[in-house]
Amino acid sequence: MKIDILTIFPEMFAPLKMSMLQRAENKGLLSIGLHDVRDYSLDKHKKTDEYPFGGGPGLIMTCDPVFRCLEDIGAAGKRIVYMSPKGRMLDQALAEDYAKEEDLVILCGHYEGIDQRILDGWQMEEVSVGDYILTGGEPAAIVFVDAVARLIPGVLASKEAAYEESIYSGLLESPQYTKPREYRGMEVPEVLLNGNHKAIHLWQFEQALRLTKERRPDLFEKFIKEERTLTKEEKRIVDNVLKLL
Amino acid sequence: MKIDILTIFPEMFAPLKMSMLQRAENKGLLSIGLHDVRDYSLDKHKKTDEYPFGGGPGLIMTCDPVFRCLEDIGAAGKRIVYMSPKGRMLDQALAEDYAKEEDLVILCGHYEGIDQRILDGWQMEEVSVGDYILTGGEPAAIVFVDAVARLIPGVLASKEAAYEESIYSGLLESPQYTKPREYRGMEVPEVLLNGNHKAIHLWQFEQALRLTKERRPDLFEKFIKEERTLTKEEKRIVDNVLKLL
Repeated sequence: MKIDILTIFPEMFAPLKMSMLQRAENKGLLSIGLHDVRDYSLDKHKKTDEYPFGGGPGLIMTCDPVFRCLEDIGAAGKRIVYMSPKGRMLDQALAEDYAKEEDLVILCGHYEGIDQRILDGWQMEEVSVGDYILTGGEPAAIVFVDAVARLIPGVLASKEAAYEESIYSGLLESPQYTKPREYRGMEVPEVLLNGNHKAIHLWQFEQALRLTKERRPDLFEKFIKEERTLTKEEKRIVDNVLKLL
Repeated sequence: MKIDILTIFPEMFAPLKMSMLQRAENKGLLSIGLHDVRDYSLDKHKKTDEYPFGGGPGLIMTCDPVFRCLEDIGAAGKRIVYMSPKGRMLDQALAEDYAKEEDLVILCGHYEGIDQRILDGWQMEEVSVGDYILTGGEPAAIVFVDAVARLIPGVLASKEAAYEESIYSGLLESPQYTKPREYRGMEVPEVLLNGNHKAIHLWQFEQALRLTKERRPDLFEKFIKEERTLTKEEKRIVDNVLKLL
């Protein structure tokens, strides 16, 4: 996948050049192009912002540098995402949808917003990473690229990907423990140590159910309503958790 | 505010050292400490991960380096946030709550998760930035710090902060336009150019209502249900937007 990012802070994208995404670039699965919108400003001070018509305290990103940058990188015909608190909320399904593309273009706004004609002229898709305000589009774009790029086939090791599909069943994950068995008086639950895989599975299933019911009643409701093939033991656990206050 | 971040990728936090957050650090309003958890590993290879008890393909962050790092930086008594897809969903109200703290500590997990005894032993608060999976806690922490730090008094210019309070009234923001009046055949809506502030306000109010109804019916419902002091003209606009399909 080729991802072109338009920003006035290209140096902010250092996180995408590390860890798993760096390995993806090294393997040729991902290529991230960073484009400084200021380079496309015809203004002698490389200005990319102006005061909005109709008033307001902030500055708005102007059309021309963005249009010229998009034309220069050949963005026509590609899906162009604008990171925006007004956008469609990113979730795992939407990340999977974008992960199917060969090309993506991302525009990061800054200042108080961008000229609406940029969005209209390029039919941009507005995406929000959450219901909170950020200083600019860059932190949101880092999260967006991370969520999408890790879903490109080959980026995750296949055993991780398979595991994930199985755990991403709509429940929050059960608690996890690793060595040592005892740390500062805190012990690992006995069931995880005895090698009884069925008992381990049922314990993890119950923990996941309880956690989801407590923290995400919305996901719990959805899990309960969907038709599932559960074993007799799993059904009993579901019934017990349903009885909990 | 002092924010200590525990991570195995301290270089990923370059975005927090730029733009508005850099200015906040320069003004003495914010101090971000980056701590490499590997430095606290007693293992000769600086290992910080192990396979989980009970099976699973991934690696889990171990207790000891994290405990030793938290003790070294004096984390006891401070709110400690663990970035986790299982956590409480970050929204603007939660960001405002954290912005009141003098100290915050953030732990970024990596691998498939962390030993549950880290969360229990330090009574960590689990926070999620959205319903999607990331390669690690670092991109989430960048978003979290950005959302929280910009709310520290003095970080935003006062006119920006005041403006934001007025627009963060529960509606998505109206479209914005800046110079030039015409760009490649696309014109700025006439109403924004005529200097009639009341007409501009009503146009922006209607645009915000329509956009919110279309994209975020949840926010629109909430806005309609809450009691508000609206002018006669505003009420008429609300009634008209309510009639739209």
